[in-house]
Amino acid sequence: MKENRIYNFNPGPAALPLPVLEEIQESFLNFAGSGMSITEVSHRSKGFDDVINDAVARTKRLLNLGDSHHVLFLQGGASTQFCMIPMNLLPEGQSADYVNTGTWSTKAIKEIQIQGKNVNVVASSEDKNFSYIPENIAFNSDAAYVHITSNNTIKGTQWAEFPDTGDVPIMADMSSDIMSRPFDASRFGMIYAGAQKNIGPSGVCMVIIRDDMLARVPENIPTMLKYTTHVNKNSMFNTPPCFAIYTVQLVLKWLEETVGGLDKMAEINDKKADLIYGFLDASDFYRATAAEGSRSKMNVTFRLPDEDLEKQFIQAAMENGLGGLKGHRSVGGCRASVYNAVGLDAVEALVDFMKTFEKKNG
Amino acid sequence: MKENRIYNFNPGPAALPLPVLEEIQESFLNFAGSGMSITEVSHRSKGFDDVINDAVARTKRLLNLGDSHHVLFLQGGASTQFCMIPMNLLPEGQSADYVNTGTWSTKAIKEIQIQGKNVNVVASSEDKNFSYIPENIAFNSDAAYVHITSNNTIKGTQWAEFPDTGDVPIMADMSSDIMSRPFDASRFGMIYAGAQKNIGPSGVCMVIIRDDMLARVPENIPTMLKYTTHVNKNSMFNTPPCFAIYTVQLVLKWLEETVGGLDKMAEINDKKADLIYGFLDASDFYRATAAEGSRSKMNVTFRLPDEDLEKQFIQAAMENGLGGLKGHRSVGGCRASVYNAVGLDAVEALVDFMKTFEKKNG
Repeated sequence: MKENRIYNFNPGPAALPLPVLEEIQESFLNFAGSGMSITEVSHRSKGFDDVINDAVARTKRLLNLGDSHHVLFLQGGASTQFCMIPMNLLPEGQSADYVNTGTWSTKAIKEIQIQGKNVNVVASSEDKNFSYIPENIAFNSDAAYVHITSNNTIKGTQWAEFPDTGDVPIMADMSSDIMSRPFDASRFGMIYAGAQKNIGPSGVCMVIIRDDMLARVPENIPTMLKYTTHVNKNSMFNTPPCFAIYTVQLVLKWLEETVGGLDKMAEINDKKADLIYGFLDASDFYRATAAEGSRSKMNVTFRLPDEDLEKQFIQAAMENGLGGLKGHRSVGGCRASVYNAVGLDAVEALVDFMKTFEKKNG
Repeated sequence: MKENRIYNFNPGPAALPLPVLEEIQESFLNFAGSGMSITEVSHRSKGFDDVINDAVARTKRLLNLGDSHHVLFLQGGASTQFCMIPMNLLPEGQSADYVNTGTWSTKAIKEIQIQGKNVNVVASSEDKNFSYIPENIAFNSDAAYVHITSNNTIKGTQWAEFPDTGDVPIMADMSSDIMSRPFDASRFGMIYAGAQKNIGPSGVCMVIIRDDMLARVPENIPTMLKYTTHVNKNSMFNTPPCFAIYTVQLVLKWLEETVGGLDKMAEINDKKADLIYGFLDASDFYRATAAEGSRSKMNVTFRLPDEDLEKQFIQAAMENGLGGLKGHRSVGGCRASVYNAVGLDAVEALVDFMKTFEKKNG
């Protein structure tokens, strides 16, 4: 690895493509010939306009979206979207269907309840510690929307296919797998993603909202919490998080121009997942925790024979330049987050290390 | 100027201290020996804990604050605080006093009205196009709080002294002059500042809230909009804007260790203001627009004899490496923003250029 950099399996904030980091570093004192750092230029300048417009255009191209969808860059993370969605898009007197697949879904559900609005939890995998994605869900045909979490960072599960919700718009928190594979984005009423896993640094949340959703936004909610405010001002009603948006733009450029788009990205992600899950399944020492068919290609959760070995494993991995392998504090165990920017070489290095560790300790 | 950098008089995002930018650049691929970029490290790591805790400690030292004040780093800019303040700190049935000194105060007032809460605009300088700071204001002794904007970026005015509000807590939007001078911060119920003018890049808002304010926070508001959520989690209820907080930490370090604290900073800012206002007052060509006694030491607004000359002036300045001198689009004219990171050398260069331009065009 270059300049003493490590293989970074952090769950988020997470690895970024090295060419993106190098470009930021290179131009950090003089962005686009402005004589200023990207952190010092006006968000009302042509230079920054080019950045945000390019980020929007690339997002639409990568996801095959047209003028019917708006791409926003907001602050407050996906957690703020948990409250903005019902505040903006769940009309009084109606109810929304939520699928509960783990910690983040649970938090999203809580924010509707705080607002005193009606939520139906139409399916949950809580009965088996959120280790699977529910199937054959009976959605309410009169729901204002259906909400899902496409990938569950903590439990290591992911929707392989998105559910058919008929005429009911579907909203998805895609924080941890957006841009990791192609999918039909046009049928989503809204997609949102904290950038710090697959598309950028922390501090910005991508929101993709379909035009017909905007008619639902009530007049009398706080200005900064209204989707229409940000749609009408191209995410610049107030000063946006310029550096984070700039980094997202460069990641999207890398994804389009270096990787070659979402089909290519998915091929690589499939190879990475095949390698590590194949290894885990063949091992009697390591054990994958998510149910087959529900396994995340982004967050691979696994256990060792006991917690002492897990501690040793995480420590020894770190000493060998493999960081971020500790499971979330709420579930323990181990987790390798293998987002887009984590290359096949990193997964190969991880599997090699796992083999060596097993030989010594198995 | 180094590496083709310009003198940056942008109103925000604005100039940052060059040593801060250089430190970020230098360590951008390997933060604190982690083998990762600051944009890639976990917010739950010791490395980032050190960053945020240091930023909090430096803020408290610079402002002479003790345990009775909490320092938070939130997203959404000061604009989100406009709605969070009444939502959290204005109990139902009570009213708040607001002083209207320009665009930002006006926006803050609007956000109370959207929530259907009671606001008394106890003073306004709208009668003279917000060119002065009102004096001898009669505050309501039963107000839940008084709200002011300490410096008005667009109109170029600044409170020279903060008003005595007796037992009523005072809340201040200090986005454009925080850390520019010493003041008694302990008597404020809350201080908030979008970082992108005096203390960092865009994407983070510093909030300093006094302990007794927290008892007012209602239970049933969205989690991300509750001050108690962020106080209880040291600004890390969800993933914070790590890069922006890191930059703020470095700016505060520069302010303490290189500049020598707020007394020293104020001395430098006074010299800068004396130089440019002295020049403007002596000139028949240029004219300062803010009333004497209300003039901002951060944003110096001025006019030339006519708008054509102003256009030429801004253009010629840019060609001479002096950027960001255009007045806000809502008021026109010229504006030199001379925040902490804009050195005396920059103001000297500006005045020299202004003299030359006057000779050619006066």
